[in-house]
Amino acid sequence: MADLLWQKPGVAVDAQIQAFLAGDDVILDREFFLHDIAASRAHAEGLQRIGILSADELAAIARELDVLADDFRSGDFVLDERHEDGHSAIEARLVKRLGDTGKRIHTGRSRNDQVLVATRLWLKDRLAALHAITHEAAAVALDRAEAEAALPMPGYTHLQRAVVSSAGMWWAGWAEAFIDNAQRARDTAAWIDANPLGTAAGYGVNLALDRDHTTQALGFGRMQVAATYAQLSRGKFELAALEALGSAMLDLRRIAWDLSLFTSAESGFVALPPEYVTGSSIMPNKRNPDVVELMRGTYASVAAAKSEIEHLLSLPSGYHRDLQVTKGALFHGFGKGLQALALLPDLLRRMQWNPDAMRAALEPSMYATDLAVDLARQGMPFRDAYRHAADPGQWEHGDPQASLDARVSPGAAGDMRLDALRARLAALR
Amino acid sequence: MADLLWQKPGVAVDAQIQAFLAGDDVILDREFFLHDIAASRAHAEGLQRIGILSADELAAIARELDVLADDFRSGDFVLDERHEDGHSAIEARLVKRLGDTGKRIHTGRSRNDQVLVATRLWLKDRLAALHAITHEAAAVALDRAEAEAALPMPGYTHLQRAVVSSAGMWWAGWAEAFIDNAQRARDTAAWIDANPLGTAAGYGVNLALDRDHTTQALGFGRMQVAATYAQLSRGKFELAALEALGSAMLDLRRIAWDLSLFTSAESGFVALPPEYVTGSSIMPNKRNPDVVELMRGTYASVAAAKSEIEHLLSLPSGYHRDLQVTKGALFHGFGKGLQALALLPDLLRRMQWNPDAMRAALEPSMYATDLAVDLARQGMPFRDAYRHAADPGQWEHGDPQASLDARVSPGAAGDMRLDALRARLAALR
Amino acid sequence: MADLLWQKPGVAVDAQIQAFLAGDDVILDREFFLHDIAASRAHAEGLQRIGILSADELAAIARELDVLADDFRSGDFVLDERHEDGHSAIEARLVKRLGDTGKRIHTGRSRNDQVLVATRLWLKDRLAALHAITHEAAAVALDRAEAEAALPMPGYTHLQRAVVSSAGMWWAGWAEAFIDNAQRARDTAAWIDANPLGTAAGYGVNLALDRDHTTQALGFGRMQVAATYAQLSRGKFELAALEALGSAMLDLRRIAWDLSLFTSAESGFVALPPEYVTGSSIMPNKRNPDVVELMRGTYASVAAAKSEIEHLLSLPSGYHRDLQVTKGALFHGFGKGLQALALLPDLLRRMQWNPDAMRAALEPSMYATDLAVDLARQGMPFRDAYRHAADPGQWEHGDPQASLDARVSPGAAGDMRLDALRARLAALR
Amino acid sequence: MADLLWQKPGVAVDAQIQAFLAGDDVILDREFFLHDIAASRAHAEGLQRIGILSADELAAIARELDVLADDFRSGDFVLDERHEDGHSAIEARLVKRLGDTGKRIHTGRSRNDQVLVATRLWLKDRLAALHAITHEAAAVALDRAEAEAALPMPGYTHLQRAVVSSAGMWWAGWAEAFIDNAQRARDTAAWIDANPLGTAAGYGVNLALDRDHTTQALGFGRMQVAATYAQLSRGKFELAALEALGSAMLDLRRIAWDLSLFTSAESGFVALPPEYVTGSSIMPNKRNPDVVELMRGTYASVAAAKSEIEHLLSLPSGYHRDLQVTKGALFHGFGKGLQALALLPDLLRRMQWNPDAMRAALEPSMYATDLAVDLARQGMPFRDAYRHAADPGQWEHGDPQASLDARVSPGAAGDMRLDALRARLAALR
Repeated sequence: MADLLWQKPGVAVDAQIQAFLAGDDVILDREFFLHDIAASRAHAEGLQRIGILSADELAAIARELDVLADDFRSGDFVLDERHEDGHSAIEARLVKRLGDTGKRIHTGRSRNDQVLVATRLWLKDRLAALHAITHEAAAVALDRAEAEAALPMPGYTHLQRAVVSSAGMWWAGWAEAFIDNAQRARDTAAWIDANPLGTAAGYGVNLALDRDHTTQALGFGRMQVAATYAQLSRGKFELAALEALGSAMLDLRRIAWDLSLFTSAESGFVALPPEYVTGSSIMPNKRNPDVVELMRGTYASVAAAKSEIEHLLSLPSGYHRDLQVTKGALFHGFGKGLQALALLPDLLRRMQWNPDAMRAALEPSMYATDLAVDLARQGMPFRDAYRHAADPGQWEHGDPQASLDARVSPGAAGDMRLDALRARLAALR
Repeated sequence: MADLLWQKPGVAVDAQIQAFLAGDDVILDREFFLHDIAASRAHAEGLQRIGILSADELAAIARELDVLADDFRSGDFVLDERHEDGHSAIEARLVKRLGDTGKRIHTGRSRNDQVLVATRLWLKDRLAALHAITHEAAAVALDRAEAEAALPMPGYTHLQRAVVSSAGMWWAGWAEAFIDNAQRARDTAAWIDANPLGTAAGYGVNLALDRDHTTQALGFGRMQVAATYAQLSRGKFELAALEALGSAMLDLRRIAWDLSLFTSAESGFVALPPEYVTGSSIMPNKRNPDVVELMRGTYASVAAAKSEIEHLLSLPSGYHRDLQVTKGALFHGFGKGLQALALLPDLLRRMQWNPDAMRAALEPSMYATDLAVDLARQGMPFRDAYRHAADPGQWEHGDPQASLDARVSPGAAGDMRLDALRARLAALR
Repeated sequence: MADLLWQKPGVAVDAQIQAFLAGDDVILDREFFLHDIAASRAHAEGLQRIGILSADELAAIARELDVLADDFRSGDFVLDERHEDGHSAIEARLVKRLGDTGKRIHTGRSRNDQVLVATRLWLKDRLAALHAITHEAAAVALDRAEAEAALPMPGYTHLQRAVVSSAGMWWAGWAEAFIDNAQRARDTAAWIDANPLGTAAGYGVNLALDRDHTTQALGFGRMQVAATYAQLSRGKFELAALEALGSAMLDLRRIAWDLSLFTSAESGFVALPPEYVTGSSIMPNKRNPDVVELMRGTYASVAAAKSEIEHLLSLPSGYHRDLQVTKGALFHGFGKGLQALALLPDLLRRMQWNPDAMRAALEPSMYATDLAVDLARQGMPFRDAYRHAADPGQWEHGDPQASLDARVSPGAAGDMRLDALRARLAALR
Repeated sequence: MADLLWQKPGVAVDAQIQAFLAGDDVILDREFFLHDIAASRAHAEGLQRIGILSADELAAIARELDVLADDFRSGDFVLDERHEDGHSAIEARLVKRLGDTGKRIHTGRSRNDQVLVATRLWLKDRLAALHAITHEAAAVALDRAEAEAALPMPGYTHLQRAVVSSAGMWWAGWAEAFIDNAQRARDTAAWIDANPLGTAAGYGVNLALDRDHTTQALGFGRMQVAATYAQLSRGKFELAALEALGSAMLDLRRIAWDLSLFTSAESGFVALPPEYVTGSSIMPNKRNPDVVELMRGTYASVAAAKSEIEHLLSLPSGYHRDLQVTKGALFHGFGKGLQALALLPDLLRRMQWNPDAMRAALEPSMYATDLAVDLARQGMPFRDAYRHAADPGQWEHGDPQASLDARVSPGAAGDMRLDALRARLAALR
C-alpha cells in the first residue's frame, strides 16, 4: 500500500477502504504522467523566479524530472499501487533523490493543480489528434467525391429507394461532415486552452506565483484566472472535449451503418478489404464486417463517458472526491473513440464500390421526382406536376448520368461545389 | 384530421396510426412557424430569380406570407391538428389564397428543406439568447466580485472548511464560468451558421436553385454545401446547440447547489428576495428556495434532451422518420433551460450576503495552509512546513482580511485580475 | 395567476418567477387528477374513521369529489393555470362548495402525499397497460410462430446471410421476448404496489391516520411504511417503471429495425398494410414505413425520460422542488412509449411475408454449418469438419425445409417447444 | 497476436485492425472465465448424452477443464492477448492437451453460446451479491432504527428545517429502501434465470442437444427457449441487472449526500470513523469524507454503463459485433457499483451521531405543524389552523420527545411499525 502524504499520526488504514479510494486511479495516472512531469517543471521554474527555489535547486529538479520521464518511458519506473497516485509519486521521487530540495516542489501547489493542468495538456493533445484524423477523413472523402462524381448509386430516404444519386454525392456529404468535425475539434481546443496551474486547492496561495510564466512555458493560450473557476471547470472542460469527439463519432456511427448495409448480400454495393473482415467459430461460411460494426458500437462508449461526467457534476462549488471519477470516464471515451476513428481514413481510402450492383438498384420510380420538377419548370404548378408524376404509368427507366447532370441545384451532382469544401478544409490545416 | 399532401388514391387512413404519426408535431411546429414562413419567402425569391415564379407571383406570395405571419401572431391563424404539420400549412394557405401560384411554392423544395432551415434559424435565435443571458450573468458576477472583494467567507473543499476565502473570489469564479459559456454559445452559433435550404430531400433537384441568394437573404454565414450533409446534420447540430446550453446549465446547477446550501439554516450565508421563496401546504413555518431548486433540477431536462437526440441518430444516411423526434427534444431542452437561466442574472443581482454568518464560520484551522506556505517562504521545505502546520496546537484565529490580502497568487484574493476577465467579456459583446 | 395556499402576507409575487415555478405543472396534473380525487376520498374516509370528519362531512366531501370528477371528465371543470396545481385545486373546490368542511380535507396530509399517491396509482395503471400490450404482442407472435413454422427465411448474423431460418423462428424469438416483457411489467407493478398516503411531508403527523384503511381502499398490496421512505422513493419508483417499459421498448426498437430492413427494396421480405405507409411532399414515388421508423425512434423518448429522472435524484433525503421535474419526464416516457407499443400487436397481426423473396435470398453457403455439424455427428472432430465445410467447393443448394426439419436442438425449427412459451404466457394472464 | 479460429487462408492480418477488434476483450474475459469453463463442462456432458462424445472423452475433457480452472486461479494459466478471447482459449487448451477430443468440444455450440451463458451465470452471481449487501444494509438500518428511535434530529425539506424528526425515522427510511433493493435484486435474478446454452449462433443446430440437462446442471430456473431470443436478450438482460443495481445505487447516492452534509462543520451531526477520512496534500488541517463522496460519485459509473448498453442495442435481430461492447460496460458498472455498496453496511454500523448538535438544530418554528394539526384535531378547520400556526408569534420551543411520541401516524416516530419491515426483510433471507 502507498504512503499517504496527508496521513495523520495514529490513524490505522483499512485496506478495503484504501482500495476503494484508490480504485485504478494510479493506473489511470499513467495516461498523463508525462504531462504531470512537464507541468511540475514549469511550476519549479515559477518557484525559482519568485525565490522559493535557488537556480541550483531548479536545475536539480529539472534534471530529476527528465530522468523520471525517461525512466517512465523506458519502463524502469512503473507507476503502480505502490504510489497513492501519480502526483504524489513525482514528489516522492524528488524527495528520495534530492531530499529537502524535493520537499520544496509542492510549495504553493496542490494535487488539484496537478490533475487539472495535466488533464488540460492531455486534452489539448487528444483534440489535436481528433483534428488530424477528422481532417484526414475529410480529405479522403473529398478526393473520392471528385474521382467518383459520375458513379451512379441509389439515393435513399427511409431506406426506400428515392432518386438517382451518385457515389460523389455520398462522399461529399461525409467530406463536409468531417470538415465540421475538424472545425469543432479546433474550436474546442481553443475554448479550453487556459492554464489552471497556480490556483492551488481553489483559493490560491499566499505567494506571488508566476502564473504568466507557467502559462507561456506550457504553451497555453491564456491563464484561467479565477482560482475558484479552475475547480469549477473540472469535468466541464472534459465534457466539452468529449462532446467535440462525440460529434465526429455520430458521423462515424452513421457511416458505419451505411457500410454495414452496403456490405450485406441484399445490397452488395461495397467490398471491404479482407483485413476488415472476420469469421465465425461455428459457421464456416461467414465473412463479417466486424470492424465496421465495432466502429458503429463505439459511439456508445463516448456517450457513456459523457453521461458519467454529467452525473458527477451535481455538486456545490469546490473540489469533491466525486470528481476523481471524471478521469476514468475521460480516458475511456477518448481511448475507445479515437481508436475507432483512427481506422476510418484508411477504410475510406480502400473500400471498393461494386458499380454493377449500384446500377442494378436503380429503378424507374426513381426518376419520378425529376419528372415532376421538369413539368414544373415547363410551367405546370408543382403540386399538379407532383400528382401527374405520382402515376406509376409515367415511370420509366431513365439515364442515370443524365439525371445526375441535370441535378444542378448547388451541392447536388450537377453542381457539386467541391471547391468550397476544399477551401474550408485548407483553412483548417 | 389533416389533408395529406402525399396521399395515394384509394388508401384508407387509420385514425390511431395517423395520431401516432402526427404526435404533437403540428403543435411543436408553432415554435418555428415564423422561421418557416421567412424561409418560404426566401425560397420564393430564389424561384423568381430562376424564372419559376413571375415577379407578380412572388409579390403575391410575399404578401400572403406576411398576412399569414400576422394572422399567426395575432391568433387569427391557429396551427393545430387540422394541418398535417406547419410546413404543409404554409403551402395549403398559399394554394387557398393564390390557387396555381400557391401550388408553385414547393417547386424544388421538400419538407425536409423546411424543417432544416426553420430549425437552423431557430437555433441561431436561441443561441443568441443563450449568449445574451450568460453574458449578463457574467457581468453581474464581475461587478459583485469587484464590489465584494473584501467580504470574507469560508472556502470549502469536500464541503469541509478549508481556508479563508471571499465573496469576491466566489463571484469571480462564476464570472469566468459564464464568460466561457457566452464564448461557447457564440462559437456554436458560428459552427451551425450554414444554410441547408435548397437541398430538397437530400439529393438536390434538377433546377439551378439560387442558394447563394437564400443564404444571404436569411443571414446565414455560409451555405451548407453537400445536399446529403444537410440531412446528416439533422440532430447533430441540434445536439451541439444543446451541448452549448448544457455547459451553462452545468454552472447553473452548481451555483444553485451553492445557494441551496447557503440558504439553509445551518449555513445562513445568503438571503433570497422573498419572491424567490415559497411555502408548504401543511407546514406553516416553511420558506423554501424552490426557485433555486428548480434551477438546479433543470439540468436534467437538458441532459434528457441530449440523450433523446443521441439515441435517435443510430441510423444510416438519409432522412428517416425517427428524426422527427429531435424536434420535441430540442424544444424541451431549450425551453426549460433558457427559462431557468433567464432568472439567474436578476437572482445574482439581488441575493444578499449575511456577513456575520460568513465571518462566524471562519475558524482557526483555516489559517493552517497560510502558515505552512509562510514557513516555506521563510525557507522551511514545504513538506516539513506542512507537517508543522498540521499540529492543531499551531492553529489560531487569524485576521481574515490579512489572509486575503496576502493571497497574492494571480487569480486569488490579493491579485484578482478582474481586468483580464473584463477584457474577455467586453470582447464578447 | 393562481391563489397560493401558503402565501405569506405582504410578499409580492413576481409573474416570471411564478411562471417558472409552475411550469406546465398544472397541465401535467390533468394526467392523474382522477387518481388524486380517488385518493382524496380515501383520505377523507380515513379522517372520518379517526373522528376528524363527521359522517355527514365525509358524505358531503365524497359527493363533491364525485361531482368534480364528473366535471373534469366532461370538461365542465378545466384544470389550468388558474390553479397552482391539481392538488390545491381539489381543496379549493371543496372549500368553495363546502366551506369549513372543505377546509378540513387537508388535515394530516401534504401535497407530497397527494402527488405520491396519485403517481403511484397512475403507475399501476400504466404498468397494467404495459402488461396487456406486451401480453397481446406475445400472443400474436406465438400464433404466427405456429402458423408459419415451415416458412423458410434467411437467418442473419452481422446482417450477413448465415444459415437457413424460418418465419416461425423469427416469431418465436419475439414471442419469448414479449413474454419476458409482460413478466417484468407484472413484477414491477408488484414492487411499487405500496401506499405512500399518510406520510405527510415525510415525517408523519400527530394524528393516528388510518393508513390500513387507505391502503385497502385504494387497492394497494402493502403500506409503504417509513414516512421518510415515501419521499425517498419518489423518482426511484418512477424510474423502475420506465425501466420496465424500456425493456419492451428495446424489443420494439429491434423489431422495428427488422421491419425497416425487410420492407426495403433490397430485401423485400415484408409488405406493410397501406395504412402504415406514408408519402413524400416532393417525391411522388415514395411509400415510406414511417410508422415503423417512429416506433424505432420512440425508444429515445423513454431513454430521455429515464435520464431526466436519474439526473434529478442526486439529492439528500427529504423533498426538494427538483423532484417536480420527474412528473413531466414520466408522462413523456410512458405517453410516447405506450402509444408506440399499442400499435404493435395489430402491425404484427397484419404484416405479410413475401415467401418468394425470402426463398430467393437463401444461398448455398447457408448450408455450410449444417454440413460441418453433420460431419461432426458422423465422427469427424468438429474443428476439422469446420475447415472442411469452409471450402466453397463444398457448398451447394440444399432443401430449406430439410434443413429446418433437421434443426432439432430445442428451441430451433425442428423442435420449437412453443408449448413451453404458451404455458408461460398463460400463467401471465 | 492470437491464432484465429476462423482465419481464411491467404488473408494477411493487420495489427492495428486486430488490436481494435480485440480491444481489451480477452482481459475482460477473465471476469467470467470460470463460468465459461463450467458451462463448457455442462456442454460436454450434454454432448456425451447424445453420443457426440464417449464417456472417456467426456472424462478427459472434464479433467482438463478442472485443471484449466485450477491453473487460472493459481496464475499458472494467464488469459491474455495471446488468445483471441477466453472462449477460444478453452478450446485451444483442450485441443492442445487432448487432440481430436478437444476438437469436438465446439460441436453444436458457438462463441455466442459461450458468452451468453457465461454472462448469465456471472449476472446471477452478481445479483446474489447485490441481494446480500442490500439485505445487510437494511438489517443494520433496522437495528439502528430500533435502537435510536428516541434520538431527536431535525427533519428537513428543501434543506430547510421543517419538523422534529428522529434518528430512528432516518434509519427506518433507509431500512425500507434497502429492503426494496434486495427484493428487486431477487426479482431480477429470477427474471434472467434462463439458460441460453444450446442456441448456437441464434438459429440452433442440426443436433438434438440436451438443453434440459445443461439447464439443470448449471442451476438455471428455466430454459431460454427460442434460439433467436437468446441473441435478442443480449444486452437486455445485462441492462435489467444494471437497473436493479442502479436502484440500490440511487439510495447510496442519497445516503452519501446526507452524510456529506451531516459531516460538514455547519451541521456536525455525524462523525465518521477515522479510516473513512482522508487529508489534503496542501492544506494540513483537512479531514475529508472522501469515502462518502466516492460512494456518491459511483452512481455515475452505473449510469454510464446503462447508457453504454442502451446505445448499443439499436440494431436489427441477430448477433452484431457491436454487442461485444456490452461486456466492458457491464463489468465497469457492477465492478464499481458493488465495490462502493460493499462498504455501506459497515459504514452504517460505525457512524456516530452527535446528539448535542442535532438537538441544537431544533428550533421553535419546527413545532408549528404539530400545532396546526393539534388545532385541527380540536375542531378548527385545518386551513384556518394552518394560518393561525403560521404566525411566528405562536412558535415556541417544544419538547422534542413529546413531539415524536405524539407523531402517531403509522410509519412516524410514535408508531414506527418496524415489525412490518422486519417481516419483509426476514422473508427475503
